[in-house]
Amino acid sequence: MRVLNFNAGPAALPLPALERARDELLDFDHTGMSVMEQSHRGKAYEAVHNEAIALLRELSGIPASHEVLFVQGGATLQFALVPMNFLRPGQASDYLVTGVWGEKAVEAAQYVSPPRVLSFQEQGTYLRVPTPGDLAGLNPEAAYVHWTSNETIHGVQYPDVVDTGRVPSIVDMSSDFLWKKLDFSRYAFVYAGAQKNVGPSGIVVCVGDRDFIKSGRTDLPKILRYQTEVENNSLYNTPPTFSVYLIRNVLAWVKSVGGLEQMERWNREKAALVYGAIDRASGFYRAPVETQSRSLMNVVFRLPSEDLETRFVAEAKAENMVGLKGHRSVGGIRVSLYNAVCVSDARTLVAFMDRFAQVNG
Amino acid sequence: MRVLNFNAGPAALPLPALERARDELLDFDHTGMSVMEQSHRGKAYEAVHNEAIALLRELSGIPASHEVLFVQGGATLQFALVPMNFLRPGQASDYLVTGVWGEKAVEAAQYVSPPRVLSFQEQGTYLRVPTPGDLAGLNPEAAYVHWTSNETIHGVQYPDVVDTGRVPSIVDMSSDFLWKKLDFSRYAFVYAGAQKNVGPSGIVVCVGDRDFIKSGRTDLPKILRYQTEVENNSLYNTPPTFSVYLIRNVLAWVKSVGGLEQMERWNREKAALVYGAIDRASGFYRAPVETQSRSLMNVVFRLPSEDLETRFVAEAKAENMVGLKGHRSVGGIRVSLYNAVCVSDARTLVAFMDRFAQVNG
Repeated sequence: MRVLNFNAGPAALPLPALERARDELLDFDHTGMSVMEQSHRGKAYEAVHNEAIALLRELSGIPASHEVLFVQGGATLQFALVPMNFLRPGQASDYLVTGVWGEKAVEAAQYVSPPRVLSFQEQGTYLRVPTPGDLAGLNPEAAYVHWTSNETIHGVQYPDVVDTGRVPSIVDMSSDFLWKKLDFSRYAFVYAGAQKNVGPSGIVVCVGDRDFIKSGRTDLPKILRYQTEVENNSLYNTPPTFSVYLIRNVLAWVKSVGGLEQMERWNREKAALVYGAIDRASGFYRAPVETQSRSLMNVVFRLPSEDLETRFVAEAKAENMVGLKGHRSVGGIRVSLYNAVCVSDARTLVAFMDRFAQVNG
Repeated sequence: MRVLNFNAGPAALPLPALERARDELLDFDHTGMSVMEQSHRGKAYEAVHNEAIALLRELSGIPASHEVLFVQGGATLQFALVPMNFLRPGQASDYLVTGVWGEKAVEAAQYVSPPRVLSFQEQGTYLRVPTPGDLAGLNPEAAYVHWTSNETIHGVQYPDVVDTGRVPSIVDMSSDFLWKKLDFSRYAFVYAGAQKNVGPSGIVVCVGDRDFIKSGRTDLPKILRYQTEVENNSLYNTPPTFSVYLIRNVLAWVKSVGGLEQMERWNREKAALVYGAIDRASGFYRAPVETQSRSLMNVVFRLPSEDLETRFVAEAKAENMVGLKGHRSVGGIRVSLYNAVCVSDARTLVAFMDRFAQVNG
């Protein structure tokens, strides 16, 4: 029996995408081989690779000005590669920090050129995204502004794109990529570890403005330049072929159920369900994040005591719901509601939350 | 029906390793989730991760002085990371080049500190590894000597470890890792893209001397330092969990059939079969590589004409044998005989080669 998987990432994948992988694991598309045994230069794999890119373009409405890339190393490697590509020693950049992932991006950028850090940490934690007023002082001469659209650990999400004026926006979108349509023309470069909404771990999707990527530094090994992947259709060296294939399966599923409009509808419904349960048991459940910065992907909340939190996780597990323990650095409960989590799973959880509050409140 | 897969990489995987993956793709180890839906910090995945490392240590006899790491980016990323970690600007290194992969390693090293290149290219191609005499002039002050134990495209393989004296050996072992026991104490650092003998693409196995890795540079982002993976058991950031799992399955298969002694026996037998067919139809089939440098992993040969080569590939394909076309840069035929290729597959191919030579010779 499959569990109700609320993991923060690697996270639940759509069952049809997994079933498709299982059914053709030994014989992909009548080739007599697994997709992972194909040459990455062969027709069978190339079709999958190009279909994944085309589906992503179609579903997300990515404009012709922007490229789609598949790279490796997780978002963490991009924390280093972004400044190596787009920042020159001594050059200024602004980093907006609304959680731990933003902190890590800053740390890696220090090795190229120390960025200016606009941290929204308060009382040792992160509870909100910046207001327009907070961003009045953004440096118009910065090489770029870097921000994290959703902070998985703290459950802090920007409700909208940050207005960076004429300064290029670079965004770590790992945990809220592909859940609704975006106007990609407003982003210079976006990167997202796949293991939340898009696929398995071990692959990163990037969407970037072609001219911006081309403006990147050339004084570093080719494999470290994003432009190299642009010029080689993400086939400069052997890509993680099975991961690209799984992304293709996930995207085909997204399309089959109604595209990103449907994803957004479901994700808003799931988040409303869980935040609703928190708010109506207010005093028992407590969501620390400011209302307008609440994440739709990762709902973070506390119970009156750590003991109750431990029991909450254990009793939910006994009812087949897993992945609810908050990140070790912040404690509490975290409910991750990525694309592959059904509305009915959220309903089951909410019924449990109501009961648990009634019994223990 | 499964084909006889002689691909150069990504390459054939052992059928039992794939069947195991298929059977538990939706429900790994009674967790109600796929292994790729597990948290990389959870018990279920951690057990797989540690089992893969333990099996590799056990099968290869890796000494306690050496660490096993899983990293991303393919061997191509390591071409850049090796000099970034182990070479300082202005410092000397020796790169032995016996094929295209060695050339690529040199290219990436240029960005850190131009290495001295000992190229064994002759008449525009590569036909042999260096003799001890060729290596008499190795620089005893070099930070390291870098070499490529098997060149997949040219089919040139070192029959034995290179004696670099007290200078650390760093070896790209992508295409001949895990086919026989090695004395790892003679290597400072070894890296191998998994997609030949070990697993799928998108993951690299490294084996390195603990003290040597620790001596690496610290003036680069943590994610670029091998020492970071040593300190975090290759879990600094989210690893490609499904790829590690598949490696575990492959290693379990290797163990179940008799370990690396059996792999070596089979690999020597397969190579002897194919080189035997070439040599007895000498004049029709022509293996350009010098006998003592012939690769046991990738058997490269030519036919009297390109037209015959095209027919060879097409007729073999009609008999269910694929992956035989030589790399586009060198032409001809290439037979890759990695661990997952059975002796009986090699026999079937050899019977075809004999017939083809008789009919067309």
